[in-house]
This record gives sequence, structure tokens and C-alpha cells, in this order.
Amino acid sequence: MPTVIGKHLIADFCGAARQTDLKSIEFALRAAAEHAGATVLRVVAHEFSENNGITGVAVLAESHISVHSWPEHDYIAFDIFMCGKADPHLALQWLEDFFKPAKSTNQLIERIAPA
Amino acid sequence: MPTVIGKHLIADFCGAARQTDLKSIEFALRAAAEHAGATVLRVVAHEFSENNGITGVAVLAESHISVHSWPEHDYIAFDIFMCGKADPHLALQWLEDFFKPAKSTNQLIERIAPA
Repeated sequence: MPTVIGKHLIADFCGAARQTDLKSIEFALRAAAEHAGATVLRVVAHEFSENNGITGVAVLAESHISVHSWPEHDYIAFDIFMCGKADPHLALQWLEDFFKPAKSTNQLIERIAPA
Repeated sequence: MPTVIGKHLIADFCGAARQTDLKSIEFALRAAAEHAGATVLRVVAHEFSENNGITGVAVLAESHISVHSWPEHDYIAFDIFMCGKADPHLALQWLEDFFKPAKSTNQLIERIAPA
């Protein structure tokens, strides 16, 4: 059996609160990572003036959480990629509680070295 | 039909060159993004002293490219997530040319707002 190196949750929200709020998104990246048991190395976020969309990444000792919002589509895309004992499902649960999406879907991808 | 907001390539390399070379990885994030027609806002990369693994992200106007290497597993995980006219397949092609993996696998995920 190949070794699973990382657990990668692809999560998509629509109808979420705070999707254009830069400070909330920076806070959420850090808090969700810590709730999952991960160690935050850096948080970088950027606000697009033309459409109020936000893009951001928490660089983790255990990989990353990224967020990209498209308010014109009422859509936020998250990636929660963690190795080791950190649990990406705990981060997703935290993000759902904070952003309160009307709809949320996700899929788990087990990241493995190609054999 | 739901609108595809972003094209997200999940790519896994094993047996690659340069997987512990921080400067090469920073260069590659930027060059692959530009080759794909994307605009780089920030590149952040971090080297782990305990195992020589590297984690890095290029934050793009069109979303992001992330890289995480586990030299102890001879494995590099890339995510190439782009919206608009930028083409993640061009970035992947550039990364394969540069890192020369013995094996490379990928899957494309079309990111859409949940209906």
C-alpha cells in the first residue's frame, strides 16, 4: 500500500458571510489551522479592489490552507492540505462555523507519491 | 450548467531533482506561474531544517501554486489553481521540465460554486 503523505480537503462554499472581509479571512486562516492542530508559519492575504475578492494562504508546518473568494459568484474556494497529526476536517468545521455558508461541499484527496 | 470558476491541477511527483533546493523552488513557483500567463503577487517559501523538506506558495492574481516536498518520501506535491485565462497545464509542463520527476501524476478539479 502506498503511504498517504497528506490529507487534502477541497471545500467550496456559496452564500457565505464575510467573503469580502480581509481581516476576518486572515483571522480565519490562522484560527482554523490552529483548531486543526497545525502550526502557522505565515499568513499572506490580498484584496482585489476591482471586485472585492480576496485571496489568501496560511503557510503551515503541515502544508497549507488557501482561500479565494469571488463575491461576484457568491463563492469561496478553500484548500486545506495537512500532513502529520493535524486534522483538516477540524479546520473545515471551524471555517463552516465562521463563514456560515448556505451551501458547502467538499472532497478529500489523499496525497501519495506516484508509484 | 454551473460556471467553472477555477481550474485546479493536483500534481504529484516522485524521483524529482531539486526537491530540497529552496532557491530553485522559489524560482520555479514564479517562472511556472508566468509561463501559464498568471500574475505573481507574492512568493513565500520555507525550508524545514529537520528533514530538508520545503513548503512554498506563489500567491497569484489568478489564485495560487503551492509546493510541498518530503525528501524522506522522495515526493513533491503541487497544487496549481488558476482562474481566468491562465492555463495550469502550462505551469505543470514547466514544472515537469524543471524538476524532471521519474514519475508524475495529476488530476484536474474544476472548481465550481455548490448549487
